[in-house]
Amino acid sequence: MRIGIDAMGGDHAPEVEVKGALAAKELLGKDDRIVLVGQEPAVRQQLAQEKGWEDFIEIRHAEQVIRMDDPPVESLRTKPDSSVAVLAQMHRDREIDACISAGNTGAFVAAAQMRLRRLQGVHRPGIAVVAPTWRGPVAICDVGANVSCRPQHLYQYGLMASAYLSKICGVEKPRVGLLSVGEEDGKGNELVKGTRELMKADPNVNFIGNVEGRDLFKGVCDVMVADGFTGNVILKLMEGMAEGIIRALVTEMAQTMPTQVNEIKLAAKNIARKYDFNEYGGAPLLGVDGICIICHGASDFRGIKNAVRAAMDFSKCHLNDRITQLLSEGERIANG
Amino acid sequence: MRIGIDAMGGDHAPEVEVKGALAAKELLGKDDRIVLVGQEPAVRQQLAQEKGWEDFIEIRHAEQVIRMDDPPVESLRTKPDSSVAVLAQMHRDREIDACISAGNTGAFVAAAQMRLRRLQGVHRPGIAVVAPTWRGPVAICDVGANVSCRPQHLYQYGLMASAYLSKICGVEKPRVGLLSVGEEDGKGNELVKGTRELMKADPNVNFIGNVEGRDLFKGVCDVMVADGFTGNVILKLMEGMAEGIIRALVTEMAQTMPTQVNEIKLAAKNIARKYDFNEYGGAPLLGVDGICIICHGASDFRGIKNAVRAAMDFSKCHLNDRITQLLSEGERIANG
Repeated sequence: MRIGIDAMGGDHAPEVEVKGALAAKELLGKDDRIVLVGQEPAVRQQLAQEKGWEDFIEIRHAEQVIRMDDPPVESLRTKPDSSVAVLAQMHRDREIDACISAGNTGAFVAAAQMRLRRLQGVHRPGIAVVAPTWRGPVAICDVGANVSCRPQHLYQYGLMASAYLSKICGVEKPRVGLLSVGEEDGKGNELVKGTRELMKADPNVNFIGNVEGRDLFKGVCDVMVADGFTGNVILKLMEGMAEGIIRALVTEMAQTMPTQVNEIKLAAKNIARKYDFNEYGGAPLLGVDGICIICHGASDFRGIKNAVRAAMDFSKCHLNDRITQLLSEGERIANG
Repeated sequence: MRIGIDAMGGDHAPEVEVKGALAAKELLGKDDRIVLVGQEPAVRQQLAQEKGWEDFIEIRHAEQVIRMDDPPVESLRTKPDSSVAVLAQMHRDREIDACISAGNTGAFVAAAQMRLRRLQGVHRPGIAVVAPTWRGPVAICDVGANVSCRPQHLYQYGLMASAYLSKICGVEKPRVGLLSVGEEDGKGNELVKGTRELMKADPNVNFIGNVEGRDLFKGVCDVMVADGFTGNVILKLMEGMAEGIIRALVTEMAQTMPTQVNEIKLAAKNIARKYDFNEYGGAPLLGVDGICIICHGASDFRGIKNAVRAAMDFSKCHLNDRITQLLSEGERIANG
C-alpha cells in the first residue's frame, strides 16, 4: 500500500509530518511506502539527520503551499501545484492508495471532491470524527464537509458512519442518533424531520431516534448524525471547552491545595489526554472513491502516525465496498 | 409590579416555585406582588408552614398541568386551563406585568407567542441565555425558540441581545459574533452569509464577524448569534460536558490524591457553581410585547428568585422600548 502525506499541511509542517512518517515505519509491511508530498528541499532538510528512511519513504515535490487561512476553493484554482492538490491528483491517478493531510481542511475536502469521484450512490461526502467522551467514543458525522444538507445526505452519513464504526472499531450494530433539539418525534427542524423517516425505513441503520447535545456524554449512541454546520460548531466547541474547563479546575484546585500542584497537573494531563485528538487516527472523509484521512492542524507526530494506521485499517477492511453495498441495499428498500 | 410565576412548571414544582417566591420577598417594593399560578391546594400546602406570605403573594388557581415531555402546541390546545396558558393569558390581559416559568420551555414559548403580540417590527422572538464562561458571560441568542431561521431573524437576535446585555448587564457596545464554521467572510451556510450583510449594515450592531464554537471560551464576543437549532444544541452540549468533565477530573484526582478527596470535591463544587444556571436570572424571551423569563427545569429556589430579579430589571430599564427603537432605526437604515 502507498500512502501519501501532505508534508506542508499542518501548523508545524513539515517537521511533524516527517516525524510522523518516520514513526509510522513500524506499522508498514515490507511493500508499503509513504510518499511525502511537498517542497522537497524543506522535506529533505527534516530527513537529513535520519538514517534508513529511503527504504520506506519517497518524496514528491510540489512547489506551492495552501495556508490554513487561505480560501479553500479559490486557492486550489490559483495554486494547482500545491501539495494538497498534487496529493489528490496522485490518488486519483492511483499512484497512491490513500492520502493524509493536517492542512487546511476545506482545501483538502475540496481537492478530494474535485479530483476523486464519489462512491456510487453517495450524494455528499461527510467527515466522521470519533469524539472521545468519558462513556466511550462517539462518531460524529458530518463535522464540516457539507454545510447545506438535505435529509438524504444525513441519512447517508448515518449509514456510512455506522459502516465505519463497525468495520474499523468493531462496534456491532452501532446505535445511530440524530442530533436535534429534543428527543420527541415532533421536535427539530424540517431537515431533522425528513431525515428521521429515511433512517427509520432502512433496517441497516440501527436508528435510536433524536438525541440532544447533552446525550453525547451519556453513552446513548455510537454514531451522532449532524449537518456539517452544527457538527463543525460542536466539534470546535468541545475542543475549546475541554481545554478551558480543565485549566479553570487546575487553577481553582492549585489555590486550595498549593502543596499538591504537581499531582493536580498530572491528573489534569491524564484527563486532557483522553480528549487529545492526537491519540485518535484522524477523521476519514466518507463517501469518496478513495481513502482521505483528515488530521487536526495542531497534530503532533502521533496524530500523523495514527492517521497512517487509520488509512491502512480503512483499506484492509474494504470499507468503501461495504458503504457501496449498504447504500445500494438502502436504495432498493426505498424503491420498494 | 405584579410578577406571575408558573407554580407547576419545574422538575420540583410547586415546592421550588413557592420557595423561590418566598425568597424573592427581599427584592420586592411595597406595592410589588407575586402571583403563583397553578393548582391551589398544592400551592397552599407548600405555603402552610409559612407566615406573612399573604402580604406579597397571591394565588391564582389553574386546574391543568403541562408536563415536561408533553408536546408543546398540542398540549396548549388540549389543556387551555394549564398553569402556563393561564399565566400567558393573564399577562396579555395586563393582570400581571411579567411571567416566569421553569416548565416545558416549548409550551411556555408557544403560549407567549400565541397570547402576547410581538414587539413592533420583530419577526420572531428569540431566547437569550447568558452562558457562564471563564472569560465572562456571553449571551447566546437564539437557543431554541426558532429552529427555522432566516437572516432577518438572526440580525434581530443580534440587535435584541445587544440591547439586553447593555441595558441589563451594563456592557457597553456589546461585541456581536455570528456563530459559523470559520471566521472568514466566505465561510458558513446561506443563512450565515445573508445575516452578515444585515449585521454589517446596521451601526447599532457592534458586529465583529463570524465566530467559531471554540470562540465562546475566548472572550472575543459578548453576544453570540445562532439559529435556534444550533443554539439549543450547543447549550445542552455545554451543560452535559461541564458536568461530565468535572466528574471525570474529580475521579482521576481522587485516585492520585486519596487523602485530599474533600478538597478536590470542594474545588470542583466551586467550578461547577460558575456553570450553575441557578446563579443566573433565567433566560428572557426577547421580542414579545411583555416580559417572559424562562427558567431551567431543574432550577432550585435561587433560580426562581433570580428570575424575579431579572423580570424586575427588564421592566425597570424599559428594555422593550429600547428594542423597538433599535429595530425602527435599523429599518430606517435598511430602507435608505
